[in-house]
This record gives sequence, C-alpha cells and structure tokens, in this order.
Amino acid sequence: MSVVLPAEHLAKVLGHSFSDPRLLRQALTHRSFSSTHNERLEFVGDSVLNAVVARALFVAFPQLTEGELSRLRASLVCQDALAEVAGALHLGDYLNLGEGELKSGGHRRPSILADALEALFGAIWFDAGFEAAQAVVERLFAPRIAGIDPSRALKDAKTALQEWLQARRVALPQYLLLRQEGDSPNQIFEVGCRIESLGVETRAEGASRRVAEQAAAADALGTLKDRYPGKAKRF
Amino acid sequence: MSVVLPAEHLAKVLGHSFSDPRLLRQALTHRSFSSTHNERLEFVGDSVLNAVVARALFVAFPQLTEGELSRLRASLVCQDALAEVAGALHLGDYLNLGEGELKSGGHRRPSILADALEALFGAIWFDAGFEAAQAVVERLFAPRIAGIDPSRALKDAKTALQEWLQARRVALPQYLLLRQEGDSPNQIFEVGCRIESLGVETRAEGASRRVAEQAAAADALGTLKDRYPGKAKRF
Repeated sequence: MSVVLPAEHLAKVLGHSFSDPRLLRQALTHRSFSSTHNERLEFVGDSVLNAVVARALFVAFPQLTEGELSRLRASLVCQDALAEVAGALHLGDYLNLGEGELKSGGHRRPSILADALEALFGAIWFDAGFEAAQAVVERLFAPRIAGIDPSRALKDAKTALQEWLQARRVALPQYLLLRQEGDSPNQIFEVGCRIESLGVETRAEGASRRVAEQAAAADALGTLKDRYPGKAKRF
Repeated sequence: MSVVLPAEHLAKVLGHSFSDPRLLRQALTHRSFSSTHNERLEFVGDSVLNAVVARALFVAFPQLTEGELSRLRASLVCQDALAEVAGALHLGDYLNLGEGELKSGGHRRPSILADALEALFGAIWFDAGFEAAQAVVERLFAPRIAGIDPSRALKDAKTALQEWLQARRVALPQYLLLRQEGDSPNQIFEVGCRIESLGVETRAEGASRRVAEQAAAADALGTLKDRYPGKAKRF
C-alpha cells in the first residue's frame, strides 16, 4: 500500500480537472508528509461542504425547519459519513502520508480521509470557483440526500442518543427546560440536553418541548460521535 | 419605531438589487410576524457567511494554521459581531416583527439582528448566485478582516476566557492534556478545556501544548459568548 496512485486519476473520478495541480497535491498531503499539508484547505473546504449541503437540503425539504435541516446536515457531513464518501472514491490510495502514518494504516483512518475530502472541496473552489466545487459536492452527496427519509432520520434522536450512551455504560442524559416564551402557534421552547459525566451540554429551540428535546439530543449525539468516533467501548 | 422602512432602501445599502423581492422580504421577517419567516434562509446564509469569511481569512493570513483561522472566524461571525454589522446597516428599521417583539425592542435585539443579516446572505445566494452573496459579505466584512492583528487577536484567548469567567464568579477552567502523538516538528497535542460548573468542555489540537490550550480556550469562550450573550452577570 505504499504506492500512491497518481492524483490525476482522482481528479477524473471527481469530475474536476485542476488548472493548478499543486492545489490537488496539497489537498492530498497529510501533515505527517510535508509542511505544505492540507489542513488550511480543509478549513475552507469544510465551509464549502456545509454551504452546498445546506442549500441542497433547503431545496429538497421545503417543509422542514431550520433546526431539522441542521440535524440532517450534521448526519451527512459527520466524520463517518465523509469517510464513507472518501472510501468510495478510494481516496486513501492517493494520499501522501508520512512513514509513521503509512505503517499505522493512516490511509484507512476516517479522520484523515474526511479531512482530505474536505480539503479537495476547498482546493476546487480556489482552482475554478465556487460553482465548480458546488457541482462536485452535489454529485457526491446527491444520492445520500435523495435517500433521506426525514421522518425516520429526525424522529429518533433521543432514542439514538440513549442507545449510544447505553452501549458505552454512560448515564442517560438529563433534559432541562431552559426557556419558554411567546404564545401559540409562535411559542418557543429552549431545552438543554446534559450528559454530565462526559461534560457535554447542548441546547436547542423548537416549537414544542418534544421538538426541542429531539434537536438537543441530535446535537449531543453529533458532538459525541465526532469526539469518540468508531465502535462502542466503555469509558 | 413601528414604521418599517421599505426593504428596497436596504437593498441599495447592501449593494444588491433583488430580482425576487419576496426573498428580501422573507429575510427581513421574524417568526413572530409571519409563518413565512427568515429562519430557513438564516440556516443557508450562516453557511455562506462562514465560507466567504473562511476564504477571505485563508487568503489574508497565509501564515496562520487552520485552528488559528477558525478562531479568527469565530470572532468575526459571533452574534455580537454580526449584530454590530447589522446595526451599521440600520437593519432593525427594516424588520417585520410581531406585536410582542416590537414592544419589547426586538428590532434592537442582537440575536434577531444577527439572524436577519445571515438570512439576507442566504436570500442573495438564491436570488443571484453565490458570487453575488460573496461580494456583499466581503464588502461588509473587509474592514473588519483588514483590522485584525492576528498576534493580538490570537495571543490572549486563555486570558480572555479567564476574565470572562472571573467577571461572572465562575471557577476557572481546567486544561487537560488528552493526547500527544508524533515526533517533532510534526507533533500534535490535543488539549481539553473544561468549565465544569457550566457544563462546557472543548477540545483542540495544536503543534504545542500552549497553542492547543489557546485554541481550546478560544473555542470555549466562543461557546460561552454565544450561550450567554451580553454583559457580565453572576450565575
């Protein structure tokens, strides 16, 4: 696995031909390989991804609230989802990794794959403009967006959080009503979801207490999955 | 203050003339006024703002790391900063607010102003494409980006966090070394910043323990400022 495939192959798979191949190379370079690595591009690319997916969800789901769109996006752009997309592109085969990362299987590590994928989106923006990056992101994520069943994806955040915590023998979250204001149908409920033993507390608003709790639970679950990626293990 | 100024004036000040004035109207409509309100547009607009500012900082500060760029951006797009930009545009005078919000000074509330400003960016993207939205965001934020002194803005996150907490009689944060890997000069330190009594814990990586602590402190301070906007009060 120490043969790195030529980056041009990847450009073809992505459907974007780079005017400046140095941008492509930098997006594929991990910090363990060179000081000209992909972390700054990843910062920009993460924002491209978030914007394009936000717009696509806005258009695809006119009936969903801001909070619901935000939860759907979080599930589409979390590290595990990005690593899956990167895996389908065989992105790991194109990465420039240092000796240590190569030996320890860095080309399969979800965080490294997700970061490189985001860096690619940033590199395309610099290379050919926002619409070019948008086209690539949309092509990669369209099947996932089309496959979303919002009622299924959104209904069960509290249950999913509970299952995640139980699998790790962590005490269940507390839900706290923090604020309630306005009159029906424009009432707003703000709820906190606190997982004391892990130092996590999220907050969310909703038109009902139930909706706000679901949103806060989804946010907490996203935070936990980013912080502790991978399979269940006891804390 | 119950006279709402015509939205077209604002469009002129922003430098964008809307092809679809309904988008402009929706961006200026708070949920207390109508069910066709600005929250979904705000979700998209927030992502436009983050992307444009990310790119502008990337270009302006080639020497800064991803974490440093991220901290600078957080300071530029936090609620208070957005409310200032909105205030300079007199955005409050154009908002459609419900009776209750009008009476309680909603047109001056930072969260309402910040949300409407973001919604405008989303509306411009839908109205005329990303580059149009990018041009408006860049014009509004260029003076602030040009005014950044990175060494000053980045140096003092731990001090700033400490001051924020002391002003509220909250116990000082603990900094925990969570991970240390790799060999110099590619070492990575991961540090946690825990403010137990407020249920806040942030994590950040850096090339040194000091840099990681600063980044984690900046992140914690951003979280706290978003959660508890406004002046100091005891908890």
